[in-house]
Amino acid sequence: MLLSFQHLTSTKQLSREDTDAILKVAADMENLLEKKSGDDRLKGKVLASLFYEPSTRTRLSFETAMHRLGGDVVTADGFQFSSLYKGETVEDTIVVVGQYVDIIAMRHPEAGSADRAASVSPVPFINAGDGPRQHPTQALLDLYTIQKEVGHIDGLHITMVGDLRYGRTVHSLSFLLGLYKNVKFTLVSPRELTMPEKVTEFYREKGIEYREAESIEEGLNADVLYMTRVQKERFADQSEYERLKLKYILTPKHLVGKKCTIMHPLPRVGEIDPAVDSNPRAAYFREVRNGMITRMALLSMLLGKV
Amino acid sequence: MLLSFQHLTSTKQLSREDTDAILKVAADMENLLEKKSGDDRLKGKVLASLFYEPSTRTRLSFETAMHRLGGDVVTADGFQFSSLYKGETVEDTIVVVGQYVDIIAMRHPEAGSADRAASVSPVPFINAGDGPRQHPTQALLDLYTIQKEVGHIDGLHITMVGDLRYGRTVHSLSFLLGLYKNVKFTLVSPRELTMPEKVTEFYREKGIEYREAESIEEGLNADVLYMTRVQKERFADQSEYERLKLKYILTPKHLVGKKCTIMHPLPRVGEIDPAVDSNPRAAYFREVRNGMITRMALLSMLLGKV
Amino acid sequence: MLLSFQHLTSTKQLSREDTDAILKVAADMENLLEKKSGDDRLKGKVLASLFYEPSTRTRLSFETAMHRLGGDVVTADGFQFSSLYKGETVEDTIVVVGQYVDIIAMRHPEAGSADRAASVSPVPFINAGDGPRQHPTQALLDLYTIQKEVGHIDGLHITMVGDLRYGRTVHSLSFLLGLYKNVKFTLVSPRELTMPEKVTEFYREKGIEYREAESIEEGLNADVLYMTRVQKERFADQSEYERLKLKYILTPKHLVGKKCTIMHPLPRVGEIDPAVDSNPRAAYFREVRNGMITRMALLSMLLGKV
Repeated sequence: MLLSFQHLTSTKQLSREDTDAILKVAADMENLLEKKSGDDRLKGKVLASLFYEPSTRTRLSFETAMHRLGGDVVTADGFQFSSLYKGETVEDTIVVVGQYVDIIAMRHPEAGSADRAASVSPVPFINAGDGPRQHPTQALLDLYTIQKEVGHIDGLHITMVGDLRYGRTVHSLSFLLGLYKNVKFTLVSPRELTMPEKVTEFYREKGIEYREAESIEEGLNADVLYMTRVQKERFADQSEYERLKLKYILTPKHLVGKKCTIMHPLPRVGEIDPAVDSNPRAAYFREVRNGMITRMALLSMLLGKV
Repeated sequence: MLLSFQHLTSTKQLSREDTDAILKVAADMENLLEKKSGDDRLKGKVLASLFYEPSTRTRLSFETAMHRLGGDVVTADGFQFSSLYKGETVEDTIVVVGQYVDIIAMRHPEAGSADRAASVSPVPFINAGDGPRQHPTQALLDLYTIQKEVGHIDGLHITMVGDLRYGRTVHSLSFLLGLYKNVKFTLVSPRELTMPEKVTEFYREKGIEYREAESIEEGLNADVLYMTRVQKERFADQSEYERLKLKYILTPKHLVGKKCTIMHPLPRVGEIDPAVDSNPRAAYFREVRNGMITRMALLSMLLGKV
Repeated sequence: MLLSFQHLTSTKQLSREDTDAILKVAADMENLLEKKSGDDRLKGKVLASLFYEPSTRTRLSFETAMHRLGGDVVTADGFQFSSLYKGETVEDTIVVVGQYVDIIAMRHPEAGSADRAASVSPVPFINAGDGPRQHPTQALLDLYTIQKEVGHIDGLHITMVGDLRYGRTVHSLSFLLGLYKNVKFTLVSPRELTMPEKVTEFYREKGIEYREAESIEEGLNADVLYMTRVQKERFADQSEYERLKLKYILTPKHLVGKKCTIMHPLPRVGEIDPAVDSNPRAAYFREVRNGMITRMALLSMLLGKV
């Protein structure tokens, strides 16, 4: 199966055919892991894992995905970016690294850096997060998790909770769910952190049903409860933060009699009580594994080894 | 050969059967290295090497051990721990990383972090040092070195020199040698840095013979002379440090007519004169290689690939 | 093909036979990459990539070279050097790491550190830059690039531009070109940054023709135009820097009607206008790939696997 693109920088470039193909290959990858035998389809291939901004979780996920398919990895992370400090452009770095390796995954703090990188990259390029903009593989792993845990994406009712204004993941996922039919959103956030206009406008254009709310309780009848962090530093008025904080901590009490699958992009720092972990519908650690699986799918598809 | 445990956090959990088995597999690993051909028993397996506190020596040892058996490695070291700074617990990090990899080695500055990690780890976990507490693979490589260099462990006379109060390695090794018969300790240290009560009490409980001394000369008739660093910052009275410092520097003169094997966990910063390096009984660099060998044994045993 | 040495610390130790052999094996390596199949000649071998001073470009080049031949890599980079901070000598670190791995590449900020390391290394050692001194693999990749782009090295006319005083690469390359016949140098630099006496003396001893100049225009009829960075901080008089700066920025206008191959060790920070990149004779990004190729040749030759 081939994709309609060589570089993945945004969920907006994905068609329904693309996501169908990715989810299908991801399912194959999961079967492969079950067999516990190695796979060598990317033997002789090298991934450059370039994290200008450290993200242990995402970096290890990409790197393990590459190893699971027999490929090798070279890494540069955070403080190791010597050339950066000598003033090299992202474009020059990508052209250089593209002389060495077969595929590049990059995280960079600047919005738009991923598009600039992809525009010159001589090898397939994957955006692993460009500042406030996009993090498309996170959205794809969310999609794969929904498909697996709920059983369908068309007709989904999803509640997104927390910082919807600055949360990159809820934006990327919203655009991606726009490819599916009859998806319904409940958006739970403090007034300071509501979903931005660029996303709600997208909902309206696509005729997607959405409802805004201020308490978790209003969203518990959805298929998926997608939790995110609310950060103290977003609030001008700290007493307002203290008032709201508790409204956005998920506890086992919320879930009595509910059937929603609980997701979270992690790391969590308090917004899900650890007592929820034992709930069979708590899918956030399984999501992590799905991240590796989805990245295995992408790496092999972009390298033409499916 | 299988071990009685899935996670290794402390030497206290090891039985004599365990150490016998580990030393035996380590000897097999050494033979394997001699043949200079690669070995692929861990092909398709991935180690996560998580060093919250940097330790180049120990980290490279684990990672090379994994590669020598055909396995792959993903690494996070020191400043790379982005999620740490976002406030994630060690437990959540281990559950997440355990979704990616087959085995985890972790160094962490907090006492008890290794036990907390092991309690939730979905894959085998090895403590590579948890603050002042334990560093069990160092003790195992010391044990393997003694066996190889001296020829026996039962009946051993070992002199430990230097900072016995804060030196994690001499504590871990003491507990491990308690599994063997008729081991005798000479403990050479400044009064400020004597072996702590928790260890001497263990000696007494086990009926192990030990003697405390203040000068190296009193310990030179042992089978093994185990040197450690004395750190300036341990002394309130700096003139006391200056007085003692020279008493704990091993020179060729000390070794005239002596047969003791000289060990040191490294790095050394002055307490062994480099002129000692050419002494055939100077085993500290061979110890380093034994570290890789012992870790090869542990990795393959914990992954059930012996 | 074997080399006359086990450790490579300086271009001065290379004979014409050595460079002939290296360029030949490098050409074989390039063919191997063209075939796009993996190569496994270094399977089971491990490279330690020790960068006390970060250099993402050079480090990734060595590491990818090792992977391209089926080998594995362990890395320590910059802040990760914990033992360094505990006061261990470079010699002890190299002896230790030499117990783990099969070959070492090291970058270190101190002049002479490479020779000290090589003098104790139990395995082949490659200098990847020791402060202001040498960076021999950069010079070898420059040589390979010249051979490929110009077609010959004997009889070459090369113009070196920029900071010739502190630029390590132009010194190493000068010594290496001294092995070839009838090479001619045009040296373009501000008066503050002329080629140092140790190099011009070498030219005179070898009977090599050279000419010093202050403007790029005087060097455009050479076979190779070797650009380097001019750093602001080298100038006491900043107005002097501002005056000179523009004289050393290469633009497409300079190249009208010229046939010179354009090289640069990278990173560039303004001294080559990006509009030059599309010139077919702009070889600086191809140089990068040649770096990986040359290092593949060296790694396999030093490990006896050619």
